[in-house]
Amino acid sequence: MKKGLFIVFEGPEGAGKTTVIKELESLFTDSNIEYIFTREPGGISISEQIRDIILNKDNVEMDGRTEALLYAASRRQHLVEKVIPALEKGKIVLCDRFIFSSLAYQGYARGLGMDNVMEINNFAIEGHMPDLTILFDIDPREGLKRIHINSEREVNRLDLEGIEFHEKVVEAYHILAKRYENSTVIVDASKSLAEVIEKVAKEIITFIERKGYI
Amino acid sequence: MKKGLFIVFEGPEGAGKTTVIKELESLFTDSNIEYIFTREPGGISISEQIRDIILNKDNVEMDGRTEALLYAASRRQHLVEKVIPALEKGKIVLCDRFIFSSLAYQGYARGLGMDNVMEINNFAIEGHMPDLTILFDIDPREGLKRIHINSEREVNRLDLEGIEFHEKVVEAYHILAKRYENSTVIVDASKSLAEVIEKVAKEIITFIERKGYI
Repeated sequence: MKKGLFIVFEGPEGAGKTTVIKELESLFTDSNIEYIFTREPGGISISEQIRDIILNKDNVEMDGRTEALLYAASRRQHLVEKVIPALEKGKIVLCDRFIFSSLAYQGYARGLGMDNVMEINNFAIEGHMPDLTILFDIDPREGLKRIHINSEREVNRLDLEGIEFHEKVVEAYHILAKRYENSTVIVDASKSLAEVIEKVAKEIITFIERKGYI
Repeated sequence: MKKGLFIVFEGPEGAGKTTVIKELESLFTDSNIEYIFTREPGGISISEQIRDIILNKDNVEMDGRTEALLYAASRRQHLVEKVIPALEKGKIVLCDRFIFSSLAYQGYARGLGMDNVMEINNFAIEGHMPDLTILFDIDPREGLKRIHINSEREVNRLDLEGIEFHEKVVEAYHILAKRYENSTVIVDASKSLAEVIEKVAKEIITFIERKGYI
């Protein structure tokens, strides 16, 4: 049987990733493509337990490297329990954020070093890099503005970082898009929602057609 | 001010490490050496939370690499919150198990690869290797025999592994003792408790004298 395809969505805060993914889900429901949509911790109990430690507001002593190791551990378990089994069944796995997020946020913007964070993630993923990464590209100022006018979306800890932090995240995403240019597509997320959805859907369809899935 | 010294005790199950460390603690109490005895998670809340996930018997799906990343995360936080501050105050830090345990148990005996496990631990410890490692050396059959006649000590998950597993652990410790020969002392733990305590105490005193601490 054909092995599945692993497609990941990445991008900074306010790029509209979550909204677009929701719309894509309904598009996929009407197709006969075998797929799952997921994001870490993705309902995997061990990954949820790890995430609880990361997000626990009492854990103010949390060191940046401890946090990076916990993210890698959560990623590993989600990968092993959910992503790999689906890929092995030949499914298309569409995942909201993966390794680029750790590299951009913790490796680059928090200053742990992208190569350092890559090493622990290499241990975690054992070569299971995405077949395709769709990068939602937006000016960080524009992204933050969107968050503040979007009443449905709760402002989180990362939103409150200074603009320099978010600029670094976007800079890192561009470095990664170049480093992994053969498997990354950049989508201009400053366009209207309808245009972004259309573009992302088209990129996915083209990719899975090219790989012989439809 | 003088930076402290980081001394670690390592060895397989049943080598008598815990008993000897207890005795050492009372020896140290009577000296005027500034020291702390610790072991991961060592009362550090974040490390305790991580350890709870590792030890939770319901987490039967736990992947070996997830576990290794969690150990590294717990180690990082214990190091940052407890070990490094004590070393910076010029104290002698005596720690029951550290990086060799992960390399021997998970890297070698569980087959994840010592170099792989070393990479994530390098990320976690950022060069804070022990100044001295005291390796309790014992034939694994002898060690396991001791555990089974020691009624005070609860039999744990690792004790129930086959003899081949414990032989691999000891083999790995010997590889590590060679690789880090300048900072490792091997103690014959098959000797009587009194002899082992005397030998370990002598090794520590000689080392801290040589380093100009007493």
